Amino acid sequence: MLSVKQARQDILPIHGSFAGKDVVSLDQFEARDLQKIFALVPEMRRIVEQSRPSDILAGRIVSLLFFEPSSRTFGSFATAVKRLGGQTLEVQNPEAVSSVNKGETFEDTIRVFEAYSNAIVLRHPQPGAARQAARVAQFVPVINAGDGNNEHPTQTILDLYTLYEKFGRLDNLNGLLAGDLLNSRTLHSLIRGLSLFPNNTVYLLSPEKLRLSREDYAVLQSRNIRMIEIFSEKDIPGDCHFWYWTRIQRERFASLEEYDQVVTKSFIVTPAMMERYANKDMILMDPLPRVGTIDPAVDSDERAVYLRSQIRNGLYARMALLALILGQA
Amino acid sequence: MLSVKQARQDILPIHGSFAGKDVVSLDQFEARDLQKIFALVPEMRRIVEQSRPSDILAGRIVSLLFFEPSSRTFGSFATAVKRLGGQTLEVQNPEAVSSVNKGETFEDTIRVFEAYSNAIVLRHPQPGAARQAARVAQFVPVINAGDGNNEHPTQTILDLYTLYEKFGRLDNLNGLLAGDLLNSRTLHSLIRGLSLFPNNTVYLLSPEKLRLSREDYAVLQSRNIRMIEIFSEKDIPGDCHFWYWTRIQRERFASLEEYDQVVTKSFIVTPAMMERYANKDMILMDPLPRVGTIDPAVDSDERAVYLRSQIRNGLYARMALLALILGQA
Amino acid sequence: MLSVKQARQDILPIHGSFAGKDVVSLDQFEARDLQKIFALVPEMRRIVEQSRPSDILAGRIVSLLFFEPSSRTFGSFATAVKRLGGQTLEVQNPEAVSSVNKGETFEDTIRVFEAYSNAIVLRHPQPGAARQAARVAQFVPVINAGDGNNEHPTQTILDLYTLYEKFGRLDNLNGLLAGDLLNSRTLHSLIRGLSLFPNNTVYLLSPEKLRLSREDYAVLQSRNIRMIEIFSEKDIPGDCHFWYWTRIQRERFASLEEYDQVVTKSFIVTPAMMERYANKDMILMDPLPRVGTIDPAVDSDERAVYLRSQIRNGLYARMALLALILGQA
Repeated sequence: MLSVKQARQDILPIHGSFAGKDVVSLDQFEARDLQKIFALVPEMRRIVEQSRPSDILAGRIVSLLFFEPSSRTFGSFATAVKRLGGQTLEVQNPEAVSSVNKGETFEDTIRVFEAYSNAIVLRHPQPGAARQAARVAQFVPVINAGDGNNEHPTQTILDLYTLYEKFGRLDNLNGLLAGDLLNSRTLHSLIRGLSLFPNNTVYLLSPEKLRLSREDYAVLQSRNIRMIEIFSEKDIPGDCHFWYWTRIQRERFASLEEYDQVVTKSFIVTPAMMERYANKDMILMDPLPRVGTIDPAVDSDERAVYLRSQIRNGLYARMALLALILGQA
Repeated sequence: MLSVKQARQDILPIHGSFAGKDVVSLDQFEARDLQKIFALVPEMRRIVEQSRPSDILAGRIVSLLFFEPSSRTFGSFATAVKRLGGQTLEVQNPEAVSSVNKGETFEDTIRVFEAYSNAIVLRHPQPGAARQAARVAQFVPVINAGDGNNEHPTQTILDLYTLYEKFGRLDNLNGLLAGDLLNSRTLHSLIRGLSLFPNNTVYLLSPEKLRLSREDYAVLQSRNIRMIEIFSEKDIPGDCHFWYWTRIQRERFASLEEYDQVVTKSFIVTPAMMERYANKDMILMDPLPRVGTIDPAVDSDERAVYLRSQIRNGLYARMALLALILGQA
Repeated sequence: MLSVKQARQDILPIHGSFAGKDVVSLDQFEARDLQKIFALVPEMRRIVEQSRPSDILAGRIVSLLFFEPSSRTFGSFATAVKRLGGQTLEVQNPEAVSSVNKGETFEDTIRVFEAYSNAIVLRHPQPGAARQAARVAQFVPVINAGDGNNEHPTQTILDLYTLYEKFGRLDNLNGLLAGDLLNSRTLHSLIRGLSLFPNNTVYLLSPEKLRLSREDYAVLQSRNIRMIEIFSEKDIPGDCHFWYWTRIQRERFASLEEYDQVVTKSFIVTPAMMERYANKDMILMDPLPRVGTIDPAVDSDERAVYLRSQIRNGLYARMALLALILGQA
């Protein structure tokens, strides 16, 4: 047996069975698939917190092909593999250090690395790169670690787990999603993830020109979720279970003045803002890096989870996913 | 004991005994040495295909010093070490990330890394760098992973194994070698490798201005191999056991027009060419990256082994070599 | 338990107990702490020389965050972790490959990597960066692998061990410290380290304009060490137990001519200089890279330890330190 990859023509839904599957899009997951990951998290956490050597990935090599810088996601996946007793084959910026700069095609690079490893974790600036890699790789699963502004499914899985850990459920939640709703893959994916569970409501807070596009609005609303657009922090309802804050890229605005005006006026979370609009039991999330999103003075607020459970949950969730896809269990 | 390196003044022939030897040149190998490597390949393949943890290199650290980009060779050696239970010390582009850019000499860099590891795998743009490193390193063996256009012995070992695996022998073979015969270290080494076995014939296909130099022709012909130059794909004999195709670098030609004319006219393998000139039982090889050498439409031809057994054999052959040089066996 | 880090407000002295402590400055160490490290070296050496797999750091992941190139120190720490059975999370030049270039703060980067690992080894061009990282990291110890021209404590520990190994003591030693006494962190730290033991004398040899600053002179002299400035190799006393030679950076001088005059005239160790001024039992040390410090013709002199025991002792000393801070023992 050369591999555990399941035969397929296109990306398969998980449907309760992870072994050997590509993970390219959040849309492959149903609620029960997420629950299966979540159920493994406590065991993953124990392995990490006790620094307990594991052999779940013993004998497995995972290629980390990062065509784009990302310290957090790279470190999270590398640690996940190693904590489970696997080994990594790490290639960062292959355009600089590899045959890619001799003109090798992306497809050939994928085929080479699938010969070396039991799975490929791919980060790439190009939307659709992960799906393309998954089609090219014949023997080993491909895991999308972010392909441009398209998808970054493990980010959404960790975000959902962070909510689940806090509230014990993923239904009947109200959340605030703030930032660049027009372009943020993180926010779009989170909406899709929440729509897998009943009775969720999200308040969408963005500058006027960075609202969800009407197409995206229509597509997302056809799912099972209530979306309400707001345009000022004064409209944030007091009963939100969570705020999810994302950065607004400077280059979206015509001028730095316009950017500064919008972002400094409304889009930085401060202790005063938390005091005024956030309830005591909510959590404040941010996918990081936080640049012009959250005042460091908020870090010591125990509701601020972005530098605490969110990062750690990312590690545990990726360990759980790798264990399900590649593990000996 | 500080090391397993055998005492020596110069690079030693293998002569049936690998332990602690430098591997700098294909000329260190006799037919029986290659057979010894080949005999280990099936076991190496089982370790990989079954993802079976091995302890052949347990406790061994291998430095991968890559002074030049190479994703395939880097990944192949890194994987080989890890599959055997060893660990790597990876330094890519040391000129950018190391003391080298404070002016440290190459010799001092080698001495530092031999203190850290049980072997050094070296990739370097300068011809002769591997031999120099082998002389400097007093305690640990140096393995040449390509030194400029000089040598890349493990490439040739994997190529020879790929032929051996297919035909069960390395004698009485007819092969086509195509590409830049003037400059290609890969082609030169393959000719030398085939000359270790009786009754082999190679047809050399290249543009007129990239023929084997007369000196190289004389030196190689004094070995035990028949060489026949041809200048058109129409002259390819129908009984070739293999075609070995290599890329022609654009910079060899005065103008892009000249390059385009030569390369597109005759030097790209297409399905039509395979249909017309290749027999049913031959194999099509390419050391990769293939840039202007083989049309992707040929990939699905089962005779095309460059993205299949050639890459995998490279991994197995390097594992076998490392096991023989460094292993506990 | 999330970590072994001891609770604290500021950097703690070791005071005989290493477990979970940050190592930021040599000033955390007393003589007995150094002795504790030294006592472990023979065992560490055996692990390395016998390539014996160790499980002292089994299940431990150590982040190597190198914000600045350094092949020797990077390789030494990476090897130390791996020789002890731990795993590394390696991020070199995070400014190029990470969220740092999206504007993430240094503090956030530290917080992310402490979530992934059991310790952070930090190299940074900014003086004070290690102390700042140690304050930010709440759960895991930070080990300073050089922060600008401030401190590089493991360099001094290995230097002191090299003296201890040779002379069986760290008191009653006479040494020559040569080079840029105005700016060299290595020399300053070595003076502080030697001042922990009684009756040591150091002769300070530097160009006039690179003498120890009067402030530093006063501070260091208030410690328990005798310092004597000299300005020519002719003043080197014959009874020195060691010479410690460091490079003088070109940019300290107004012109290349001035540099060339000073450095070539007096500050390169040659066989003739060794013959004339060094006694038979002394050792010649250099922290490397040696650029314009020691003539390669001296390398074969058995008193020259910079490419031999000094590098190896660096590995053993770092292993010992990691075992004490993080180990299962």
